[in-house]
Amino acid sequence: MTELNTNTSMQKLFEPKSIAVIGASTNSAKVGYKILNNIKSIGFKGKVYPINPKADEILGYKVYADLKDVAGEIDMATIVLPAKWVYEALKTCAEKKVSVVTIISSGFSEVGNLEEERKVTKFAAENGIRILGPNIFGHYSAKVSLNATFGPTNIPKGNVAIITQSGALGVAMIGKTAVQNIGLSSIISVGNKSDIDEADLVEYLVEQDDTKSILMYIEGIQKGERLVKVLKAATKKKPIVVIKSGRSIRGAIAAASHTGSLAGADEIFDAIMKQCGVLRAENIQQALDWCKYLSNAPMPNGENSVIITNGGGVGVLATDACEKYDVKLFDDSQYLDEKFNEVTHGFGSTKNPIDLTGEATSKEYEHALNVALKDESMKGVLALFCETAMIDADSLIDMIKRVYDNYQKAEKPVIFSIFGGELTENVVSQLTLENIPVFRDIYDAVSCLGVSYRQYRHGLNTIEEKHKAKVSISKINDIIDNALADGREFLLAHEGNQLLDIAGLSGPKSGIAKNIKQAVEIAEDIGYPVVMKVVSRDILHKSDVGGVLLDLDNKEEVLDAYQTIIHNCKSYKSDAVIDGIEIVEQVKPGTEIIIGGRRDKAFGPIIMFGLGGIYVEVMKDVSFRALPVSHRETRLMVEEIKSYPLLLGVRGEPRRDIDKIVNTIYRVGYILQNCPKITDIEVNPLMVYEKGKGVKAVDIRVMLSENEGS
Amino acid sequence: MTELNTNTSMQKLFEPKSIAVIGASTNSAKVGYKILNNIKSIGFKGKVYPINPKADEILGYKVYADLKDVAGEIDMATIVLPAKWVYEALKTCAEKKVSVVTIISSGFSEVGNLEEERKVTKFAAENGIRILGPNIFGHYSAKVSLNATFGPTNIPKGNVAIITQSGALGVAMIGKTAVQNIGLSSIISVGNKSDIDEADLVEYLVEQDDTKSILMYIEGIQKGERLVKVLKAATKKKPIVVIKSGRSIRGAIAAASHTGSLAGADEIFDAIMKQCGVLRAENIQQALDWCKYLSNAPMPNGENSVIITNGGGVGVLATDACEKYDVKLFDDSQYLDEKFNEVTHGFGSTKNPIDLTGEATSKEYEHALNVALKDESMKGVLALFCETAMIDADSLIDMIKRVYDNYQKAEKPVIFSIFGGELTENVVSQLTLENIPVFRDIYDAVSCLGVSYRQYRHGLNTIEEKHKAKVSISKINDIIDNALADGREFLLAHEGNQLLDIAGLSGPKSGIAKNIKQAVEIAEDIGYPVVMKVVSRDILHKSDVGGVLLDLDNKEEVLDAYQTIIHNCKSYKSDAVIDGIEIVEQVKPGTEIIIGGRRDKAFGPIIMFGLGGIYVEVMKDVSFRALPVSHRETRLMVEEIKSYPLLLGVRGEPRRDIDKIVNTIYRVGYILQNCPKITDIEVNPLMVYEKGKGVKAVDIRVMLSENEGS
Repeated sequence: MTELNTNTSMQKLFEPKSIAVIGASTNSAKVGYKILNNIKSIGFKGKVYPINPKADEILGYKVYADLKDVAGEIDMATIVLPAKWVYEALKTCAEKKVSVVTIISSGFSEVGNLEEERKVTKFAAENGIRILGPNIFGHYSAKVSLNATFGPTNIPKGNVAIITQSGALGVAMIGKTAVQNIGLSSIISVGNKSDIDEADLVEYLVEQDDTKSILMYIEGIQKGERLVKVLKAATKKKPIVVIKSGRSIRGAIAAASHTGSLAGADEIFDAIMKQCGVLRAENIQQALDWCKYLSNAPMPNGENSVIITNGGGVGVLATDACEKYDVKLFDDSQYLDEKFNEVTHGFGSTKNPIDLTGEATSKEYEHALNVALKDESMKGVLALFCETAMIDADSLIDMIKRVYDNYQKAEKPVIFSIFGGELTENVVSQLTLENIPVFRDIYDAVSCLGVSYRQYRHGLNTIEEKHKAKVSISKINDIIDNALADGREFLLAHEGNQLLDIAGLSGPKSGIAKNIKQAVEIAEDIGYPVVMKVVSRDILHKSDVGGVLLDLDNKEEVLDAYQTIIHNCKSYKSDAVIDGIEIVEQVKPGTEIIIGGRRDKAFGPIIMFGLGGIYVEVMKDVSFRALPVSHRETRLMVEEIKSYPLLLGVRGEPRRDIDKIVNTIYRVGYILQNCPKITDIEVNPLMVYEKGKGVKAVDIRVMLSENEGS
Repeated sequence: MTELNTNTSMQKLFEPKSIAVIGASTNSAKVGYKILNNIKSIGFKGKVYPINPKADEILGYKVYADLKDVAGEIDMATIVLPAKWVYEALKTCAEKKVSVVTIISSGFSEVGNLEEERKVTKFAAENGIRILGPNIFGHYSAKVSLNATFGPTNIPKGNVAIITQSGALGVAMIGKTAVQNIGLSSIISVGNKSDIDEADLVEYLVEQDDTKSILMYIEGIQKGERLVKVLKAATKKKPIVVIKSGRSIRGAIAAASHTGSLAGADEIFDAIMKQCGVLRAENIQQALDWCKYLSNAPMPNGENSVIITNGGGVGVLATDACEKYDVKLFDDSQYLDEKFNEVTHGFGSTKNPIDLTGEATSKEYEHALNVALKDESMKGVLALFCETAMIDADSLIDMIKRVYDNYQKAEKPVIFSIFGGELTENVVSQLTLENIPVFRDIYDAVSCLGVSYRQYRHGLNTIEEKHKAKVSISKINDIIDNALADGREFLLAHEGNQLLDIAGLSGPKSGIAKNIKQAVEIAEDIGYPVVMKVVSRDILHKSDVGGVLLDLDNKEEVLDAYQTIIHNCKSYKSDAVIDGIEIVEQVKPGTEIIIGGRRDKAFGPIIMFGLGGIYVEVMKDVSFRALPVSHRETRLMVEEIKSYPLLLGVRGEPRRDIDKIVNTIYRVGYILQNCPKITDIEVNPLMVYEKGKGVKAVDIRVMLSENEGS
């Protein structure tokens, strides 16, 4: 039901034609007044219905005693009453068929009052009402000039949408964007996220024309599985920047399984955001810089950037920054020399960075910039300027404006960095007002160019993700259901092997022999060497009593072993019931890898990969993805670990069967994804042989839960 | 000679009583005028002698046609003539016994004119003249109000000294410091560093009272060995911040040896700066922020910082930043609750961060800050503020000023971060003028607190470094000299083993048997198993012809092997001269590590350590230090690699003999350090056994050069 009315509800949240303020106040110090004042001040054109039983008129609006007194339809209501009255107010919303309600009020789960929040949320869900909040400062939507917040009145209009989980920070961000001339298409406080969350909002914002980029400030994630799905789709259309703070979800990932302890939640978050194509900023200023830049600048249409500078030092610093932020520099030095020879001075340089030296005049600098902008091979331009006596602020401002016009024609990114004192302050503050991307710090400038390239590269990957594998999920569910019916929350060894079989993954071959003849038949069928183990519920520690024998290389050894095991077990316990002897393929040594998956409290099913033993345990050399993953993404997962060269073959060793590794990870992920009763699944070790010789799952561990994953 | 007069020369550079400007000009557009004008404008009190054969007076100064016409002594001269006339001008300086000369002129090595620069440098050295430059914008010294640059006239006076290798960046930095109210004690352009370099300047600045912190912008390092020595000593007294740009020294480290290719120059630079206690900033703004903060703030006297905030979101962001910048948070929650209980609001928090919530008034906020400042257990305070309607700019400014007074009494670091719009801009710009550490961005604030803690921790290590080992360097030099006399630039295997013996490091035992009886004696002496190898200059590929036999476990096998080897060799070449059979201890397998050292072009002798094989080659898991290293530092080197847990023992394996590893690294380093004809030395592998069972150097490779290392 929630899914069904998302689109309409979001539209009513961002583009309401009528809005009720339940708890509107005549007292200008109260939130119930401030919100109404903000709605009025910036000129919301729709109908406004303040609700207050004790007032007749506030700020020129007619006041209604109750929601039901309003004659017309109400698209959206905002509740600013104390927590204890919210539930009753929501009832009136249901009667009036309001489909989206923002609950400004605090006093819910954030102060431990989970019960009241659940009651409100449950009622809303049952009555088809979507809830934003509670515990929020409200929301702003430029499209309909609606400032339904109790924050600052004037919010600069523009193309960045902000979704914030922190109220105080959100209000402060409004101030920050105003000072830095970063226009907003909307800002939404999500508070306790009792219903509407980032996923719902992004789904709407990504389709809305006013919004060119989206900034999310996130402290914790609840419905991560849906968020991942939404983000994957959304980042193909618009850049999304995230700031994730806090280790509060650390608790949520303190999972029982081995896989869970491999990395902090932050590493998982980071990996999943990368997978989704979301750009993660470290701090708020960086996030704002990125969003402003990405909202205004054209996307690059190729790599190969050029640095133009009037100072060697800043040129070198910029080169370092380009390496850090993965901005590729054009390096056809002959071509560059042809193009820039005439514009560089005696001891300048036509190598990238193009160094015009401190002697360059504004005119020469402009000429060089235009050469770069006109040239089709140079796909991005980073213009650096060190304050010199050669150029004054006014001519620099004029020059940059002219060049920026050219850039708009050239449809290629150009970004400026000015370093120095008074002149810099002048130039940067004036150009910032015109939304020209100019920065005081080189690293800040390059980081913006860097994210635009990340967004560009993300857009290049147009392969449709397919998530199918020839695995009978119903057969696996049968095994799981049997185990659960047996009162177990894990699979037994032979059940694990059945699962591997169904998944088309090869585990060690095995069979149970009831007599000595069968033992030989099974061993011959499996191929030598084999391992033999007694099957008896009366003998717990099989190895200790001589119930397990290894390295059996031929028929004679199997015959001997059979008798020895029976003898050993009978000597240990003369009345032990022996169900048979299990004959198991002795797996050849290979490169050991671990594939682990679990149902993360925040992100739902996630999958992990790493080389076995020390690489995982000591070096923490692992990669993560949220499921589902495409085959392509699975391959990237394998390639990104530091020990990947070991799979390619080092020191004369042959290349390993990487295709089979990718296939195995994919299938393990597919099973976890599609069998919601599996909480943890781990193949450890998977023996990997040389290319073409496949892999062998030595052991599989599967943990279950009756309650399906979130 | 250079070393001898450093102190006096530096004193004359920074505190001259008289200064000549050779090439002073009457043309106000010329550098020769601008420098004189700067000298005059800020009121240098010493004597000023402009030199120009064609003028009588410039800017009110009497002009001299030639330096020799000046009657009094000249402490310092600055040359602003074209490159071709510099040499002649320097001659006049020599005649006049000027001991330090700054050469502003460009046109030397930076444009490929190495010859002229060498000529000038050589003449200066021969005549006891220290040179700053050439190719510089000059230098400024607040102590004597001397602005001998052609950059901006007004340089704000203060406590930060800047040494810059880039002229343009240096001039721009002057502008930047003026805008940001960062006072300078001096700024020195080092240009081509033909003589005076960072080491000389730091040696002076670290003893100078006006200077509280030193910022170095470095592009390349030449005399790194001396720099390391100077920096190690200097950072014990004052914080030094470095920005190192460029990969230009990458070329310089493309050394032949295996060790050389393990890491880019930047990793080595980074490791060595850490070793020296130098704080490396990523960009200029960060470096300036750090220097300003460190110049004004008291050093912490313990870890345990407290975050006070009025917003949960910024609190969480700050916690993340504290982890990044290694600021330890006070976490005695019971203690904190006792102290802050009364000052936090209903849904605030007394856990660190102390969250006063957005409801907090200025008074409440101040109260909480004072609690933290007065408390002796809380050693540092990070005060965060999110713009709210509760506090206006004026009261915030007043409050912060008052608290800052308290902090000065409290002698503990307190740093502020204000996040928001107009109010923030107001508060930050006003408080910046008063040198109160207040930042717009939380990460910037925390990074300053972080470096002050790094400096604090660096100061705690007061252990005197000792660099002695019981190794006879003269005996090793004898081996080296013999090899060089033999026309070889490497040691032979037995020479390497001799070196190990002298160093007290255990290599495989061995001996050469002339007959079968001796072979058995040697083998019995060494202990089994042994390896036997033919010694014959007539047989090159000994293994191929059956001249090497492994795994000889007892007397009988040695007897057989002796005869077999003789037989094999005679069959291969009947007239081969066999000098004997070498009996070598067969080294038991253990954990393999690599110790490598080489003479780096930039830093002189450096040493590298890592686990053998894949850990070094694939995982690049190595650590570096510049020599000499103390035992303590050597141990840190071992502990800092990611694979260190393998040495401590994982998965039930015993702990390795770490003491012996440290001892071996120390000795290899000691040898490289003290034998300047060794260019590369590598012990690979060093087999490491369990704790108490020592190590064994399986192989050592030593490369030599007649020309001693720089």
